[in-house]
Amino acid sequence: MIQQTLQQIIDTKTKPLGALGRLEELALQIGTIQNTTHPKITDPQVVVFAADHGIAATGLVNPYPQAVTAQMVKNFLAGGAAINVFCRQHHIGLTIVDVGINTSWTEAEKQRDGFVAAPVGKGTKNYMNDAAMTAQECALAMTTGRSVVKGIKGSGSNCIGFGEMGIGNTSSAALIMSAVLSLPITDCVGRGTGVSDAQLAVKIKTLEAIAQRHNLTLLQNNPEALLQAVGGFEIAAMCGAYLQAAAEKLLIVVDGFISTAALLVAHQMQPGILEYCVFAHCSGEQGHARLLQHLGVQPLLDLGLRLGEGTGAALAMPLLCSAVLFLNEMASFAAAGVSTGTKK
Amino acid sequence: MIQQTLQQIIDTKTKPLGALGRLEELALQIGTIQNTTHPKITDPQVVVFAADHGIAATGLVNPYPQAVTAQMVKNFLAGGAAINVFCRQHHIGLTIVDVGINTSWTEAEKQRDGFVAAPVGKGTKNYMNDAAMTAQECALAMTTGRSVVKGIKGSGSNCIGFGEMGIGNTSSAALIMSAVLSLPITDCVGRGTGVSDAQLAVKIKTLEAIAQRHNLTLLQNNPEALLQAVGGFEIAAMCGAYLQAAAEKLLIVVDGFISTAALLVAHQMQPGILEYCVFAHCSGEQGHARLLQHLGVQPLLDLGLRLGEGTGAALAMPLLCSAVLFLNEMASFAAAGVSTGTKK
Repeated sequence: MIQQTLQQIIDTKTKPLGALGRLEELALQIGTIQNTTHPKITDPQVVVFAADHGIAATGLVNPYPQAVTAQMVKNFLAGGAAINVFCRQHHIGLTIVDVGINTSWTEAEKQRDGFVAAPVGKGTKNYMNDAAMTAQECALAMTTGRSVVKGIKGSGSNCIGFGEMGIGNTSSAALIMSAVLSLPITDCVGRGTGVSDAQLAVKIKTLEAIAQRHNLTLLQNNPEALLQAVGGFEIAAMCGAYLQAAAEKLLIVVDGFISTAALLVAHQMQPGILEYCVFAHCSGEQGHARLLQHLGVQPLLDLGLRLGEGTGAALAMPLLCSAVLFLNEMASFAAAGVSTGTKK
Repeated sequence: MIQQTLQQIIDTKTKPLGALGRLEELALQIGTIQNTTHPKITDPQVVVFAADHGIAATGLVNPYPQAVTAQMVKNFLAGGAAINVFCRQHHIGLTIVDVGINTSWTEAEKQRDGFVAAPVGKGTKNYMNDAAMTAQECALAMTTGRSVVKGIKGSGSNCIGFGEMGIGNTSSAALIMSAVLSLPITDCVGRGTGVSDAQLAVKIKTLEAIAQRHNLTLLQNNPEALLQAVGGFEIAAMCGAYLQAAAEKLLIVVDGFISTAALLVAHQMQPGILEYCVFAHCSGEQGHARLLQHLGVQPLLDLGLRLGEGTGAALAMPLLCSAVLFLNEMASFAAAGVSTGTKK
C-alpha cells in the first residue's frame, strides 16, 4: 500500500518519469521502511567497530603491523582520520567501539565521548591453529553490536552507517565470503591495505590452508560456526548490530568489503534484512563487487575506495538525504503549473 | 611541481596508498587548478541556462510541449524543482539564465534574485528548415554565458556546476555529438525526457534528415558553424561559460548529456579546458557514456539520472568538498603516531 502511494507521489513530481534514477528507488525504500510518505533521515550516525586479529601478528596476511588498529582508533578519537573528516562535513555522529583491540585504555580514554570500550578480549586467536573465538565470545561481540545500535536508536537516530577497523580483517572477510559463496580463495582475496604481489601470493596460500584446516566448505550454512572459526570480534559485532538495526526498522548503510561480509552472515541469519540496507559503494577491494552481486544489490557509489572505517557510508549519506528531500520538497506538476508529457 | 607536492601530502595521510580512490584524483586536480596545497571550494554555484528550440514546436522530437521550458523556469524561481532541493541541501547558490525562452517576463520577474533575463530571442529557429541561429546570435549567447561566469567569479565563487533546461535540447546535443564523433544518429539519440518507442523512431528519422540537410559531417571540426546550424541558445551560452570558467581557472562541474555536448564544442575551441572539468555523473541518456568515453573522462556518479537542470552537478559537489577536506584536515602518519606499512 505505502509503496504504491509513494510511487504515485514520486511520479507526480516535476520531472519525467524515473528521471531521478537511483534516488527514486531510495525514496521508495526509505518511505517503505518508515511506512510514511514523508520519511526523514534523523541524526544520521556512523559506527566503527574495531578489533584485532590473532593472525595479524604473523605478518602473513597484512603489510601493516597489528598495532595500527589501536593507533588508528586513537586517530579516530583525535579526529584526524578520513571518517572524522567526512562525518564532520556531513554532520554525521560518530561512535567508535573497541570490541577487542590488543591495547589498554586509560580511564580518561574510556570516558571519551563517542567511544565505547567493550572489548571481548585482546583480539581473536590466530585461526591458523585455533578457532578465532569461542561461541561465548561470539555471542558477546554480537550483543555488544546490538547494544550499541539500541543506544543510538534511543538517542533519536534512524539511519546508521557501519564501518570497521582491524588489521588483518580482509582475511576474515575473504574466508567468510569463500565459504558462503563456495568460491576459491583467489576470487575472494584482494590486496587489502597495500599488499604487494609477493605478499598477495603468501596471503592466498595462507588463507587456503586455513580454509582447509577449518573445513570451511562444511560451514556454508552455519553462520555462527563460521564466525567462530574465522571471524573477527568487529565482524561478529557488526553482524549483531545489523540484526538489531533491522529489528528496529532503521536504515542500514553498509560500507565496504568487510562490512558487506559481515552483512552476508547477518543475511544468513535473517534474510529479510536486505530491505533495510543501502549499499554505499563498491570498493576497490577485489571481492566486493562479487559479494554485492551475490546479494543481488547495487551499490550507490563506485569511487575506488578501499579504506573501510565507514568512509563510503559517510560519503553516500548525502544521497539518502537527497532522496528524502526531493520526495518531501519537490513541487508536483499540478502545484507548479507545469504541463505533463503528451504520452506516458 | 605542485602536483608532486600534492601527491606527497596525499600519500602521507593516515590511509593506505591510494585508498581514497577518485577522491585522491580530485584533490590532486583541484589543488593543481588552484596551485596550492590547501585548495578550497568557495561558495559553490550552479547555473542553469534555459532556452527554447524551434523544432520543439513540431512535436517530432519531444513528448513535452515547448511551453514546459518557461513553466519549469518558473518552477526553478519558485524553488520547487529538483535542482532547488539539492542546492538548498548543499548550500549551493543557484542562478537561472534565460538565454532565449519563448515567453515574456514581468519587470518584477526580471528582478528576481538569482535570475538573469538575457534572451537572444524567443528560441532558436526550427533547424529542420533553417540554421538554428545566426552567427551574431551565437556570439551573443556565448557572451551571455561568459558574462554570467564573470559575475559569479566576481562574487567570490571558485566552483560552478553547469546545467540546462530546454524542451527539445537532447536533439541538439545528439546532432552535435553525431557530427563531432562521426557517429550515426542512432548511437547518439536517447529517449530524452519520456519518449516512447514510436516517438523514438520518429525522433531518429527526423534528426537523420536534419543531419543530412545541414551536411553536419562537414562541420565536424567547425564548432561555431555546428552551433549555428543545430545548436541551442543555452548550449551556446554554456559553451561560452565553460571557456570563461577555464580562463578564470574555476573548477567546472559538468552535469549530464546536454551539458557534456556543450563541453564537447568548448573542448574543440579550447582543448586545455578538460583540466578544469569534473564530470559529475553518467546519465541514463543513451549517448552520454559514449560522449564521456570520447573525451577520455570518468564520471563521478552513476545513478541513472536523466533530468538535467544541473542536478547531477549539485549531487556531486559534496564529493569535491570531501576531496578538499581530506587533503586539508586528515592527519599524517607521523602526526598521528600511526605506523606505516612494512612495504610500499
